[in-house]
Amino acid sequence: MGIDGEDPDSGMQRIETFSDGVFAIAITLLIIEIGVPHLGGSESLASALWDLWPSYGAYALSFVMIGIYWANHHSIFKLIVRTDHVFLMLNVFFLMCIAFLPFPTAVLGEYLHDSGERETAVTLYALGLLLPAFGWLCANFRGLTDTRLAPDYIRFLTTQYLLSNAIYVMALAISLISAVAALVICVGLTLLYLLPPRSPRYLN
Amino acid sequence: MGIDGEDPDSGMQRIETFSDGVFAIAITLLIIEIGVPHLGGSESLASALWDLWPSYGAYALSFVMIGIYWANHHSIFKLIVRTDHVFLMLNVFFLMCIAFLPFPTAVLGEYLHDSGERETAVTLYALGLLLPAFGWLCANFRGLTDTRLAPDYIRFLTTQYLLSNAIYVMALAISLISAVAALVICVGLTLLYLLPPRSPRYLN
Amino acid sequence: MGIDGEDPDSGMQRIETFSDGVFAIAITLLIIEIGVPHLGGSESLASALWDLWPSYGAYALSFVMIGIYWANHHSIFKLIVRTDHVFLMLNVFFLMCIAFLPFPTAVLGEYLHDSGERETAVTLYALGLLLPAFGWLCANFRGLTDTRLAPDYIRFLTTQYLLSNAIYVMALAISLISAVAALVICVGLTLLYLLPPRSPRYLN
Amino acid sequence: MGIDGEDPDSGMQRIETFSDGVFAIAITLLIIEIGVPHLGGSESLASALWDLWPSYGAYALSFVMIGIYWANHHSIFKLIVRTDHVFLMLNVFFLMCIAFLPFPTAVLGEYLHDSGERETAVTLYALGLLLPAFGWLCANFRGLTDTRLAPDYIRFLTTQYLLSNAIYVMALAISLISAVAALVICVGLTLLYLLPPRSPRYLN
Repeated sequence: MGIDGEDPDSGMQRIETFSDGVFAIAITLLIIEIGVPHLGGSESLASALWDLWPSYGAYALSFVMIGIYWANHHSIFKLIVRTDHVFLMLNVFFLMCIAFLPFPTAVLGEYLHDSGERETAVTLYALGLLLPAFGWLCANFRGLTDTRLAPDYIRFLTTQYLLSNAIYVMALAISLISAVAALVICVGLTLLYLLPPRSPRYLN
Repeated sequence: MGIDGEDPDSGMQRIETFSDGVFAIAITLLIIEIGVPHLGGSESLASALWDLWPSYGAYALSFVMIGIYWANHHSIFKLIVRTDHVFLMLNVFFLMCIAFLPFPTAVLGEYLHDSGERETAVTLYALGLLLPAFGWLCANFRGLTDTRLAPDYIRFLTTQYLLSNAIYVMALAISLISAVAALVICVGLTLLYLLPPRSPRYLN
Repeated sequence: MGIDGEDPDSGMQRIETFSDGVFAIAITLLIIEIGVPHLGGSESLASALWDLWPSYGAYALSFVMIGIYWANHHSIFKLIVRTDHVFLMLNVFFLMCIAFLPFPTAVLGEYLHDSGERETAVTLYALGLLLPAFGWLCANFRGLTDTRLAPDYIRFLTTQYLLSNAIYVMALAISLISAVAALVICVGLTLLYLLPPRSPRYLN
Repeated sequence: MGIDGEDPDSGMQRIETFSDGVFAIAITLLIIEIGVPHLGGSESLASALWDLWPSYGAYALSFVMIGIYWANHHSIFKLIVRTDHVFLMLNVFFLMCIAFLPFPTAVLGEYLHDSGERETAVTLYALGLLLPAFGWLCANFRGLTDTRLAPDYIRFLTTQYLLSNAIYVMALAISLISAVAALVICVGLTLLYLLPPRSPRYLN
C-alpha cells in the first residue's frame, strides 16, 4: 500500500484515522454546548430560542472551521511520506487545539449578547482559532520537509500558513477594541478557506 | 480500488469515514440530552421517569431519522464517482445539519408536555428535520450529475428528495397551528423511509 | 474481498464501522454522566468522591456490558454473509438500545443510595440491559438464517439468546421486590459472558 | 493481509479500530468538562476565564497522556500477532481505565484552587493515571508472550511498565502529603514519555 513498504503507510493511516476521529467528535460535540433554554417569568420559548442566535452562529462558524481543517489535514497528509515520534506528538498538539474549540465557541455563544463582556468572548474565540492555526504550522513545518514537492509550492503553503497566523493574531489584537471588527475578520478568513485550495505541484 | 485510479476512491472513502463518524456521534449523543430526573417534593422516581416519555419518544424518532440518513448516505455515495472541493463543503454543510438534530430533539423532549409551548418545540423540530433534507438535496444535486445512472432513476431520486423537503416545509407550517398534526406527519414520513429503498438503475 | 463479490462485503463493513462507532461512543460517554461533586456544608471532597461508589460501579458494569456486546457483535457479524434493508434497520434498532444504556446507568448511579427509590432505579437498569438483548435477538434471528453454520450451533446460539432475555425479564420482575437480588443476577450474567464464547461450527 | 491468514489480523484490526475510537472520544470529551463560567456579582468574564487555568492545565496534561497511550497502544499492537478472548477482555478493562480519565481531570480542574481539597483532587488524579498504567501492564503481559521479539527487549518493556506503575503509586502516596510534589512527578513522567520510544528488537 505504501510507497516504501507497509510500515510507513500504515503509520500515516493510523494517524489519519485517529485524527479523523478527533475531528468528527469535536465537530459533533459543538451542539452539546447549546443548552435547552429554561424559561423564566413571562418569556416565551420562541423568543428564548431566538435569543440563542449567537450560539447558532458560533456553532456554524466553528463547524465550518473544523470541517476546513479536516479537509486540509487530509490534503496535506497525502503529501507526507514519512512519520516519526516528533511529528506524531506535534499532531497530538494540533488535535489538542482543535478539540479545545468547543469551549471558546460556547463562551462566544453565551457572551456575545453581553455588551460588557463581548470583547473578552471574541478575544478568547480568536485565540481558539489561532491555536490550531499555529499547531498546524508547527506540524507541517516538521512533516513537509521530506517530500518531493516543488519548492515554490512549499513556499506557497508556508506563506499561506504564516499569513493565516498573522491575521488571527491581528483579530486577537483588534478584539480588545472592537468585537464586531474582530469577528468580521474571523468570518472573512473562514469564507476565504471555503474556496478550493491550490493543487500541489511536484518536482519533475 | 477505485474506478479511475487510487485518488478519487480514497477521496470518497475519506469523506465516508468522516461522515460515518459524525453520524455515529450525533446518534449516540442524543441520549446525553436526557438528564437524570431530580425529585422535588413527594414525587417518586417512577413517576418522574414516566414523565420523561416525550424525551424517550424524541430520542427514538431522531435516532431512526439519523440511522436512515446514514443508510441513505451510503447507498447514494456508492453512486458517486467524482469528488471536488465544492462537493466536500456541501457534505460538511449537510453534516452540520445532521449534527444539529440533538438540540431540537432535546427541546421537543422538554416542551412537548408544556401545552403553551408545544407548537414552538414542534416547529423547531420540523425545522431540524427539514435542514438535513435540504442539505442532502444540495449535496446530491452536485454529486449525482456525473454518474452512469439511468436518467429516470435520477429523476426518481430528485422527485423523492424534493417531495421530502416539501412535506417537511408543510409540517413546519402546520406546526404553527397544531403540534400533534405536524408530529404525525414527521413520524409518518420517517416510517415511510423505513421501507426498503428502490434499487439504482444504470444505463446499459 | 467478499465471498460473492465486492458489494455484500463492503455492505457488512459499512455496518460494522458504523456500529463500532456507536459502541465506542456509548461506552466512552458513560463517564460524562458522573458529575464532579459540589461540596455542601462541612462535607469533604474525599467523602463526596467516596459516596459516588454506586456511580463507579454502574460505570464499570455498563462498560463491561457494552464491551461484551461489541465483542459479540463482531463474532456474530463474521458469520453473516448477506445484508438487506430490514437487517440494516434491525441493526439500527439494536444500536438504539445500546446507545440508551448511559441513561439507566446514570439513574442507577444516582439512586442506588436512596433506599426509597433503589428498586425503581434497578428496574430501569434491568430494562436497559433487556432492551439490547432483545434487539440483539431480533437482529440475529434475521441475519443468521442464510449462513452455512451447523444447525446445532445455530440452535445453541438461539437458546443462549432466549435464555439471556428470560434472565433479564426475571431480573426485571425481581427488582420490583429486591433491588439487591436483581442486581446480583445482572452482575452474575455479565460475569458469565466474560468467559470465552463457544467457537462456531460449520456444516462439512 | 495477516501473517498467518486473514483471521488473526482482522481480529487485531477490529480491536485497534474500536480502541482508537475510545481513545479519540475520551481525548475529545475532556473539553466538555470545562463549563462556561457564569459570572457572579462584579466578576469580569476575563478574570473568570483566567481562574479556570487549573482546568486548562488538567485538560492539556490528560490530553497528552491519552495521546501517548494511543501512540504506545499502536506501537505495541504491531508486536502482537495472536488474540484471544482473555486478551480482548483485558483490552476492554484497559479502555475502561482510559475512558475514566475525564472524571479525575474535571475534579482536578475544579479543586486545584481549593487549598483544603487540593490533596484529595491530586490523589484521585494520580489514581486516574495509575489505573490505565496498571491495565496496560496486564494487557501487555498477556499479549506479548507469543511474539518473535528479542528477550532483552521484552525485559526492557516489562521494566519500563513496572517502573511507571511504581512511580504512579509513589505519586499517589506523596499526594496525601503534598499536592504540588505529586503533580510535579505526574507531569515529569508525562514529559519523559514525550521522548521517542526505543525501537523493538527481534530475534535473528
